[in-house]
Amino acid sequence: MHRQRYYTLTASCPDRVGIVAKVSGFFAAHQGWILETALHADDTAGRYFMRIEVRADSLPFHLAELRERFRPVAEELGMEWKISDSAVKKRVVVLVSKQEHCLYDLLSRWQSKELDIEIPCIISNHDTFRGFVEWHGIPFHHIPVTADNKAAAYAEIQRLYEEVKGDTMVLARYMQILSPELCAAYPGQILNIHHSFLPSFVGAKPYHQAYERGVKLIGATCHYVTADLDQGPIIDQDVIRIDHSDSVEDMVRYGKDIEKTVLARGLRYHLEDRVLVHGNKTVVFR
Amino acid sequence: MHRQRYYTLTASCPDRVGIVAKVSGFFAAHQGWILETALHADDTAGRYFMRIEVRADSLPFHLAELRERFRPVAEELGMEWKISDSAVKKRVVVLVSKQEHCLYDLLSRWQSKELDIEIPCIISNHDTFRGFVEWHGIPFHHIPVTADNKAAAYAEIQRLYEEVKGDTMVLARYMQILSPELCAAYPGQILNIHHSFLPSFVGAKPYHQAYERGVKLIGATCHYVTADLDQGPIIDQDVIRIDHSDSVEDMVRYGKDIEKTVLARGLRYHLEDRVLVHGNKTVVFR
Amino acid sequence: MHRQRYYTLTASCPDRVGIVAKVSGFFAAHQGWILETALHADDTAGRYFMRIEVRADSLPFHLAELRERFRPVAEELGMEWKISDSAVKKRVVVLVSKQEHCLYDLLSRWQSKELDIEIPCIISNHDTFRGFVEWHGIPFHHIPVTADNKAAAYAEIQRLYEEVKGDTMVLARYMQILSPELCAAYPGQILNIHHSFLPSFVGAKPYHQAYERGVKLIGATCHYVTADLDQGPIIDQDVIRIDHSDSVEDMVRYGKDIEKTVLARGLRYHLEDRVLVHGNKTVVFR
Amino acid sequence: MHRQRYYTLTASCPDRVGIVAKVSGFFAAHQGWILETALHADDTAGRYFMRIEVRADSLPFHLAELRERFRPVAEELGMEWKISDSAVKKRVVVLVSKQEHCLYDLLSRWQSKELDIEIPCIISNHDTFRGFVEWHGIPFHHIPVTADNKAAAYAEIQRLYEEVKGDTMVLARYMQILSPELCAAYPGQILNIHHSFLPSFVGAKPYHQAYERGVKLIGATCHYVTADLDQGPIIDQDVIRIDHSDSVEDMVRYGKDIEKTVLARGLRYHLEDRVLVHGNKTVVFR
Repeated sequence: MHRQRYYTLTASCPDRVGIVAKVSGFFAAHQGWILETALHADDTAGRYFMRIEVRADSLPFHLAELRERFRPVAEELGMEWKISDSAVKKRVVVLVSKQEHCLYDLLSRWQSKELDIEIPCIISNHDTFRGFVEWHGIPFHHIPVTADNKAAAYAEIQRLYEEVKGDTMVLARYMQILSPELCAAYPGQILNIHHSFLPSFVGAKPYHQAYERGVKLIGATCHYVTADLDQGPIIDQDVIRIDHSDSVEDMVRYGKDIEKTVLARGLRYHLEDRVLVHGNKTVVFR
Repeated sequence: MHRQRYYTLTASCPDRVGIVAKVSGFFAAHQGWILETALHADDTAGRYFMRIEVRADSLPFHLAELRERFRPVAEELGMEWKISDSAVKKRVVVLVSKQEHCLYDLLSRWQSKELDIEIPCIISNHDTFRGFVEWHGIPFHHIPVTADNKAAAYAEIQRLYEEVKGDTMVLARYMQILSPELCAAYPGQILNIHHSFLPSFVGAKPYHQAYERGVKLIGATCHYVTADLDQGPIIDQDVIRIDHSDSVEDMVRYGKDIEKTVLARGLRYHLEDRVLVHGNKTVVFR
Repeated sequence: MHRQRYYTLTASCPDRVGIVAKVSGFFAAHQGWILETALHADDTAGRYFMRIEVRADSLPFHLAELRERFRPVAEELGMEWKISDSAVKKRVVVLVSKQEHCLYDLLSRWQSKELDIEIPCIISNHDTFRGFVEWHGIPFHHIPVTADNKAAAYAEIQRLYEEVKGDTMVLARYMQILSPELCAAYPGQILNIHHSFLPSFVGAKPYHQAYERGVKLIGATCHYVTADLDQGPIIDQDVIRIDHSDSVEDMVRYGKDIEKTVLARGLRYHLEDRVLVHGNKTVVFR
Repeated sequence: MHRQRYYTLTASCPDRVGIVAKVSGFFAAHQGWILETALHADDTAGRYFMRIEVRADSLPFHLAELRERFRPVAEELGMEWKISDSAVKKRVVVLVSKQEHCLYDLLSRWQSKELDIEIPCIISNHDTFRGFVEWHGIPFHHIPVTADNKAAAYAEIQRLYEEVKGDTMVLARYMQILSPELCAAYPGQILNIHHSFLPSFVGAKPYHQAYERGVKLIGATCHYVTADLDQGPIIDQDVIRIDHSDSVEDMVRYGKDIEKTVLARGLRYHLEDRVLVHGNKTVVFR
């Protein structure tokens, strides 16, 4: 992690000659000190992706002016782009149910500033973790979800997310399926951790499915949520070895270690603007 | 690997009190020196699995008599069982197409005696590797497979397998789908290496499927062949990390390293009688 | 995890014919229902190791009588042995400094009963985590360690450990080196997590050492503490891939994920009596 | 792998503002189509590293002129640099002893053109693999190495390497230690595969050392050879899990799978000019 303040440009555009020259030339012309550059040409899609970190104090103007001056470059190249500021912390709303592992893990990383974010609130369909969350000084909202109140519940979640100006929503083993409306409202903002190595074992009880199939590795997948259940763009995945002696309960236990690690890793990539979505796939500049 | 000759008992039976006592008591009564014991109780299935290696020279009788004397113990316990002899090499028939990696890998292990087996012949639907195989002193049979001759081709493969008294058939990236008859004739004898992490990406072109889905790990699966394509009992699996910069061609290349390693590992477990099949799952005593 | 109460026998003895027959015969004679059996013959050392779980309610007597009746069997075999009771929770004293990751991870597993233990107290050389620990209802003791007070500090730690009847001490990134006396007093009871893949990078600042050497994987090691720094019997290890772009700070961050996972895994093996120490090596019956 | 011919620029220079702008500007000015760009700023060393692939047919001049025109750019930036041509195959001399696994693996990749190289000859201190190598149409030289003839043997190896215009030497489990003179003559050209996870277990019999220490993972390391035994810059490493049941012989067998994979991976990075050495460390642009 860089201690100095920096801006991060992420962009994609149709591939052509001279993209890097144009963009790096822009920064060089203003004495911009580039900390990190990652580039990717997708030959199949004919598209170019980039992520550039530049030290804020090396530029002779502020962020608003940087954006203004960069705009013509971006337009010439037909870019989708944004520039973020490391001094502006992301605002992450976490949704949990009754399982503890991802929540403890995220709060551990948050309190040590490994995750340098704001958590304006944590929402759950159970009251289980109120005390734990509030001890950390974070507001906790208990929004039960039943067969009858789903629409109202999701509306309330959306209202809260808007109210606290959230820019990222994390489903940290939140055992409810968000409404299509909610998914559609925040594309590329909602991260889920699914407890299987997708596309294997979509949907409910993946460890039971894995047990029945007799696989020798189980996994977890961090992906952006879309209206199609467990079909969104994959950010990260990992697996762990099991064998015949492992029961479903053992698999659940092993799985937790993978889930929390993969979620934390995927979230980190997202927060640092390392993930660029293209269609249903991601470019992840680690 | 043990240098002394040993017998390997593999068995399964309904779980009950005293199974191990009875079996180990049998060997102890004859001063049998046990080299390795592996046991597994499947609570869900209510079934007990075991694998015991005993030094041949520690027993006061030969294999035939060992089997005869063990029979009443096995019958009392309702066992499915067999006893193999490390001095009798398995006879492995290998089927290949035009990809080299699994073939080179298997022959490398065979010539160094890491795989202490007989390879009575290698069969291919292409003539590509005739010279390489024959240089190793192994008979090579070119049996083309076309849309029209499938029945005859598979009949010829079966005839050869019988003729050379094969007891294991390895599909080392053999790009044809065996006939249901052939699969049914040799349950638990035919090993395949599938180039995906099953159950993801069954069937043709799994790396293309993986590329389209944007997964972050790709894998390979060694399994017993059954009449259901890519659905047989899984013996071993592994994965390797990829990222957005990897094309399908890159994935194919990475995949080869996993395929040959997983096939070799699965084959070794099979050859050492470490794999017990139960339903569509395996117990693998590594 | 088994829900029923069970006893766990762990034992080792000189290898000879009939060990398993004698031990399993003992349990079978009393209708003992064996849940899990793991056996290992160390050919080099000529020593036999075993771990057997037997359902408590299947035996016609209680633990004290079980031990009494098993004693002659054990003596005949020249065994080192013990039998533990799943109903008696282990008492684990945790030592921490100022890093949070292992502490959060252990408390997460403890509060969900994944680790079904008592934590009678947590000790630290800093006051950092007092609030967090006490919120969980666990007594917290701040015992500063300075160049001048080491003897007194370690004496106080030992006094507390005795007072709360601890049977396991966990150094959860406790940044102090215990006195040789303390190490010697509790062989096989004190677990440490070292932040390198031992035997590489013994001692201080292993990530800095790893950075200097330019390794491509970094790791962590859970081991029993002995008077020789970072030389005790290894219980578990794992690694994670890094590359040239990772600074020491990045390595520290990646390392935390490995450290907490390896410590939790090693601790679990220890708590379930899956670790048998022989000389400076371990048998770990996973 | 790109099918079109391309040039690869690898370079490093002191870090400053505008490096990427200058280099990419140079290529853009000539309509150079960049296929792949990898960049790395080493903050500690204050040095910048880059690797750029540009399509040969997109440039209006040939390689010699490209080098001539790029020279002023490189000089202005104080670069160490080179440009290689994908149409010029690297010439790789392989040294082996009596172990087969790396040799089979390399020839498998070579014959399928996964490794698109020339192997002008293979040298061994044993005659074991003459037939196998010659069957592949590759000249084989048996150069015995004894206590008495070392100087002459290494001189002969060097003579052959020069004669065949080798540019890369691979020690594929070649069990001899090259002379300091030979090491010094070809810095960054000689790759070795060491059968341990360096810096653990330097020197002879690393698996025996690993067995004695009781580690739970074993590994292999591909590195450039320098005059300091097993101390050269590390290119790649990997590990595999073992446990108490594995003998030294088992570890040797497992190790082979890691050794050949890590060597092949390291060699590939080297051949594609993905490895930049700085001091005793490497930047590897995968």
